[in-house]
Amino acid sequence: MRAIVIREPGGPEVLEMREVPTPEPARGEVRVRIRATAVNRADLLQRLGRYPAPPGAPADIPGLEIAGEVDAVGDAVTELASGDRVFGLVGGGAYAEHVVVHARTLARMPASLAFTEGAAVPEAFVTAWDALIDQGKLTGGETVLVHAAGSGVGTAAVQIAKAVGALALGTARTAEKLARCRDLGLEDGILVEEGTFVDDVLARTGPHGADVVLDLVGGPYLAQDLACIGPKGRIIVAGTLAGGHAELDLHVLMRKRAHVRGTVLRARPLEEKIVAARTLERHLAPLLARGLLRPVVDCVLPLEQAAEGHRLMQSNQTFGKIVLTV
Amino acid sequence: MRAIVIREPGGPEVLEMREVPTPEPARGEVRVRIRATAVNRADLLQRLGRYPAPPGAPADIPGLEIAGEVDAVGDAVTELASGDRVFGLVGGGAYAEHVVVHARTLARMPASLAFTEGAAVPEAFVTAWDALIDQGKLTGGETVLVHAAGSGVGTAAVQIAKAVGALALGTARTAEKLARCRDLGLEDGILVEEGTFVDDVLARTGPHGADVVLDLVGGPYLAQDLACIGPKGRIIVAGTLAGGHAELDLHVLMRKRAHVRGTVLRARPLEEKIVAARTLERHLAPLLARGLLRPVVDCVLPLEQAAEGHRLMQSNQTFGKIVLTV
Repeated sequence: MRAIVIREPGGPEVLEMREVPTPEPARGEVRVRIRATAVNRADLLQRLGRYPAPPGAPADIPGLEIAGEVDAVGDAVTELASGDRVFGLVGGGAYAEHVVVHARTLARMPASLAFTEGAAVPEAFVTAWDALIDQGKLTGGETVLVHAAGSGVGTAAVQIAKAVGALALGTARTAEKLARCRDLGLEDGILVEEGTFVDDVLARTGPHGADVVLDLVGGPYLAQDLACIGPKGRIIVAGTLAGGHAELDLHVLMRKRAHVRGTVLRARPLEEKIVAARTLERHLAPLLARGLLRPVVDCVLPLEQAAEGHRLMQSNQTFGKIVLTV
Repeated sequence: MRAIVIREPGGPEVLEMREVPTPEPARGEVRVRIRATAVNRADLLQRLGRYPAPPGAPADIPGLEIAGEVDAVGDAVTELASGDRVFGLVGGGAYAEHVVVHARTLARMPASLAFTEGAAVPEAFVTAWDALIDQGKLTGGETVLVHAAGSGVGTAAVQIAKAVGALALGTARTAEKLARCRDLGLEDGILVEEGTFVDDVLARTGPHGADVVLDLVGGPYLAQDLACIGPKGRIIVAGTLAGGHAELDLHVLMRKRAHVRGTVLRARPLEEKIVAARTLERHLAPLLARGLLRPVVDCVLPLEQAAEGHRLMQSNQTFGKIVLTV
């Protein structure tokens, strides 16, 4: 099969198309003919040699999410059959024509979604659902602050918040991204110019503050997040675009009885990957099928142009996902 | 009635015994004839003028926990009757002969406990149970690290951990406190001399690290807590003896999918105070009655000597609770 391989650690130019062996499914596994995948920041880090693939995933083929059709089924698989349209998260190896995964880690894709739309869903929407709903316990009537609202996870979070009856505030660094987020259900956008946002958030929430913060920026944002939230507020850190060093006022943490949680999808054991697939199938797929959630696709490129996809992501100018067709 | 009143913000000498009006229970409330109370660090802060009593509590009578007998019952109270032996948390006013509280915020005290023992229970054991079990989700087979293991909350936490089948490690600043904690069920004690403990903890837990940390020290301990815990580890901050400024490595927080939670008992709304009382009655009282948990009393003083109790607590030389009889 054809796959994009990381020739050596480096810039986008180290991504090259190669012929590699087509994998075969073992007991309990299925093989998927990938029709589309998408670019994630983790792919860029892996390409730079700073984020090795987890054990069991191809070491040199990036790509964390897929949409496609089952095309071979191992022994003892009862859930899926050849031809089933599926989408899901994989530990790596999605920049390829085929990937083999445990059958329970895939979800059935709504018939209404094209593969290019389906590939834009798993990483962004499962991350956002897991962070906001499973971990942040966000629910109807609450307010959530979404940082980097124009990112893949951010645009998913804004839509999920609205779908469950929560009010979404969001930050971004351009007015254009905020305007596009409003089309997705963002209640109000905050343009972060000088790096501060506390007063802008409190002006919108009133003194109670936000109930949940989804922080994809990190660094100096964390102390401000704590200042923005109300009693028993939950801060979920799912990215560190602004760096990993944060300061925390423990007096405020205690007084607000606040929670700070870090989360990452990729480094999860099999049982949790299966749970993530069930989230995709049981919660996200129905909302996608009913149009309450919409994949946000910035652009669609053929897999051969994966390097261009990486350059686009590095530019920070995209809105939503960069999809690669296979 | 007689009560200890804070004459003005200041040292222990500002605590003086006075005659004050005896409160009367309104609808849904009961009055308790307090037989014993105990000293908490919050009392010292309140005495210094740095921790005002919450609305509804007497502004100038300290004291957060009681053991005694119901001696007057308001309308519509069905749970309790005069003469019932009770213990519980109050918003303030426990350094007195009587206090009036909502009936649901009290718990029945095991017959096997003396009032001087019962008064040593509520703040320490409810704080520890809430932090370890309700928030930290500590359960059988897990390992917990308890800082300031010789404190009131620490000695309660060590016992609770053992009672639920968890393994307790603890830190303290004297070998004597650690030896006494071993008698309460501490598996292994770590003497913190230079302010660091990470290597000592990991030497005992192996590379997995601790599952839960109960941190009553704060400040520079928080970054070390994060280094000590394993995947999905939970750090519960319930005190800041070493200060409120903490630093956090968000990369580690994310990679470990760690939680940091702040908690405080006093500033809780009525519904949560009622939940705390149910914790005391349904979880802690049976374990106390069966001898699996033991109140840890450093000394018993008459209420008149509350100032001496404050001096003792400031000395940091006590082990367990300083109880005041009324």
